[in-house]
Amino acid sequence: MSQSYRKLSQRFNRLFQLNHAMTFLGWDQAVMMPPKGNQPRANALAELSGLHHELLANPEVEDWLQEAEQESLSFEERANLREMHRCWQQANCLSAELVHAKSLAGSKCEHAWRTQRKENDWQGFLANFKEVLKLSREEAVLRQEASLVDCATPYDALLDLYCRGDSNVFIGDCFTRLKAELPELIQQITERQKTRQPVDIKGTFPIADQDALNKQLADILGFDFDGGRLDTSAHPFSTGVRGDQRICTRYREDEFIQSLFATAHETGHASYEAGLPEAWNGQPVGSSHSTCIHESQSLLFEKQLFLSRAFSRYFTNVIHDKLPATKTWDADTLWQFYTKVEPGFIRVDADEVTYPMHVILRYEIESALINGDMEAEDIPDAWNEKMQAYLGVDTRGNFKEGCMQDIHWTDGSFGYFPSYTIGALNSVQLFHAIRQQNSDWQAHLEKGETGFIRNWLKENIWQHGCFMGAQDMMKTATGQQTNPEFFLQHIKDRYLSESY
Amino acid sequence: MSQSYRKLSQRFNRLFQLNHAMTFLGWDQAVMMPPKGNQPRANALAELSGLHHELLANPEVEDWLQEAEQESLSFEERANLREMHRCWQQANCLSAELVHAKSLAGSKCEHAWRTQRKENDWQGFLANFKEVLKLSREEAVLRQEASLVDCATPYDALLDLYCRGDSNVFIGDCFTRLKAELPELIQQITERQKTRQPVDIKGTFPIADQDALNKQLADILGFDFDGGRLDTSAHPFSTGVRGDQRICTRYREDEFIQSLFATAHETGHASYEAGLPEAWNGQPVGSSHSTCIHESQSLLFEKQLFLSRAFSRYFTNVIHDKLPATKTWDADTLWQFYTKVEPGFIRVDADEVTYPMHVILRYEIESALINGDMEAEDIPDAWNEKMQAYLGVDTRGNFKEGCMQDIHWTDGSFGYFPSYTIGALNSVQLFHAIRQQNSDWQAHLEKGETGFIRNWLKENIWQHGCFMGAQDMMKTATGQQTNPEFFLQHIKDRYLSESY
Repeated sequence: MSQSYRKLSQRFNRLFQLNHAMTFLGWDQAVMMPPKGNQPRANALAELSGLHHELLANPEVEDWLQEAEQESLSFEERANLREMHRCWQQANCLSAELVHAKSLAGSKCEHAWRTQRKENDWQGFLANFKEVLKLSREEAVLRQEASLVDCATPYDALLDLYCRGDSNVFIGDCFTRLKAELPELIQQITERQKTRQPVDIKGTFPIADQDALNKQLADILGFDFDGGRLDTSAHPFSTGVRGDQRICTRYREDEFIQSLFATAHETGHASYEAGLPEAWNGQPVGSSHSTCIHESQSLLFEKQLFLSRAFSRYFTNVIHDKLPATKTWDADTLWQFYTKVEPGFIRVDADEVTYPMHVILRYEIESALINGDMEAEDIPDAWNEKMQAYLGVDTRGNFKEGCMQDIHWTDGSFGYFPSYTIGALNSVQLFHAIRQQNSDWQAHLEKGETGFIRNWLKENIWQHGCFMGAQDMMKTATGQQTNPEFFLQHIKDRYLSESY
Repeated sequence: MSQSYRKLSQRFNRLFQLNHAMTFLGWDQAVMMPPKGNQPRANALAELSGLHHELLANPEVEDWLQEAEQESLSFEERANLREMHRCWQQANCLSAELVHAKSLAGSKCEHAWRTQRKENDWQGFLANFKEVLKLSREEAVLRQEASLVDCATPYDALLDLYCRGDSNVFIGDCFTRLKAELPELIQQITERQKTRQPVDIKGTFPIADQDALNKQLADILGFDFDGGRLDTSAHPFSTGVRGDQRICTRYREDEFIQSLFATAHETGHASYEAGLPEAWNGQPVGSSHSTCIHESQSLLFEKQLFLSRAFSRYFTNVIHDKLPATKTWDADTLWQFYTKVEPGFIRVDADEVTYPMHVILRYEIESALINGDMEAEDIPDAWNEKMQAYLGVDTRGNFKEGCMQDIHWTDGSFGYFPSYTIGALNSVQLFHAIRQQNSDWQAHLEKGETGFIRNWLKENIWQHGCFMGAQDMMKTATGQQTNPEFFLQHIKDRYLSESY
């Protein structure tokens, strides 16, 4: 008899259904809801979130967890129990007062930031941000103390929320390797690209036609429209449950490329969610792994699959077909435009070569902030110095395009940034393995056939849910843990080799 | 100190937020959701519904209700407490076993009916339906025993769910009066309409243009697009919360009139919900009254406002503007088409003159069924006899267009049908009062000005929520309770008078 395990399983199914509600109410809020719906929706979401917390943090759950440890469970059930314990621990390690205080301070700081950023008002921002940092440090210490895995520093405990299984030391080593080579590569690549004929991909591209084009792209990438939708929102995102994946892109009438990148990216996220182990749907061990893995899937679809020359050649014909105004640009011209490298101020606008430097800079600052090795006042100087050193960009006095550009720190989401670049490293390494195991990969992609990639990812990543750790998945799938050499080689191949 | 009342108030707010979730998940299911989303959505809704029931039926709620009776409450709070008691009583008067058995039998009967109806298979239907009827009779007796108001018969207790405050005797009297006059009026009207030039309003009307036209209609009728949306669904409906009303219509390319009727109808429902007392948002006393009042608002917008000759003259220009292909038909021709009267088989296709006879027939049968005065086997004979007597229509052997046409009985929704016609009577009586108190009503409607109607309804109906009973609202608003003479006079005026 595994009675306590069964109670836990039922409880987590109930939590899953509450999450279902919050998921689709959140999608509606971003995509469909009229303006006056915002306040009632916020109230409903807050109530559901409170109910979720009550049901998860309830003392009876702790009793069941302890009792279930003694019960006779299968290997899979024991893995699920471990994930349940982790969920419970994360919900319980912070006091209600701290959660509330951080939520208030974060909302206040983020809200003011929306104005302060435009006004380049660092001092105004700093006043609010210091409180957010103070509370985030408290959070990190509490999470470190309560963690079920070893966390060497408070920052490690925040990393565990997004880069689960990758320690600060491990990430630091990866980033040290990238830092050693990327700045020089960036210089070589930008020099080399100066010899290119400059092109300006501008025109008028009707939104309805772009919408049809993006739906066709998602379809080609394997998105199942019987089990999902593609809509538009202010910021592209992906959400949903098994059987109902919702992805969003955004359109501009004078430009058509950004929407395609977003659609490819979000299709990657959605495909991962749709490929999770069906038998464990609704249980913690059946859910997706942390952001490092999720981002590896979206970046694999966007930067590896969509940006491969083979697929790009195929898809140029589709673009020409749906948007006749693009016929002036051939596949090579479009691909050169897609792969332009240029150091700049803004992380979200960065290309795949300069992007890691933006992340490393943030990682170095936020880890020092959380571990108490740096104070909020020191951010601008550190930012300016690193931007100059890593990307040759001068941000002195330019806070709005410098250290105030991102939303993440305003509400205390420390530990998130590294997952973008670890995800990028993973995506390259996984795609490398796919190519090695599918020698005809180019022939497939030149015909728009993407099924072999999905099948490989399903077998090697998606179906594992949370049964395996991130690095175990990487090792099983590629023969080794996350290794920045694959990424560096990819950059050299794509941007500096004659034959690519 | 009114501590128990405060606990109740918080609990009902939590229930309101769960209802918010179910409301918009239901909207999404009908309007946006891809096919494979159905099963996960059904699971989530079932879980939320179970959670709602647990939170409402919890024994602590009964304790709070009893304690709150002794607390010092304002007049409004006491009214709210009465409504809370009613909600609790309705959730508690049936055993979980009966609810479950009825839900299963209803699902089975409804599911099979979808095929059996097409196949005209009365015997097959009867086998399932007898179980639904048996359980509905049990439900009615239990509701009668537990009711907080006087219910003379079991059927009265089901009426209380939809026609709250209107007893079986009262509804029977209204219907007796209609029966005495309507069949003769129907004959006179159809005779008179034979002299009309027949018109066929057919053509090709692009859906996008119809959508723009319907949005303009909703706007003219006062629908607030900052606090709501108009979409399309298989069956028109209306749902939402304060600040976020969602209405749906449906389009056919070869026809444009049914979508306008549906939009006017659903705008009436949505306007009522949007006009409920803001200070009591989320509490039982702040919610809309029963179906008889709701339907009176939708029918007032559809059959009184939209179908008034004055508004119709104004709106014909809007139609011509948005759908140029309609310019061949002038306002008089369109209005004659809108108001065609013709006895037929199908309730949902019936015009406002014959509709009550469809309802009366169903009322007479279902009240006898629930009170044990008729058995399921007797339905076809009763149906045939009454259709012949009331509408001169022969349904013998034609079950699919006869007693098997509606979904209501398949899952045991007995007591609902009368609210359509009581709602119609109320709508006519309310509109009569509006005209009496606004002598320039025609001048307003000829300019498309509808604000005076909304203001009157807000003051006399909407803002009352559940503070007043339905008949108290009718008396306060019109000087008397629901009186079928207004409806009969309206029919004579609109369909038999030279001057209308």
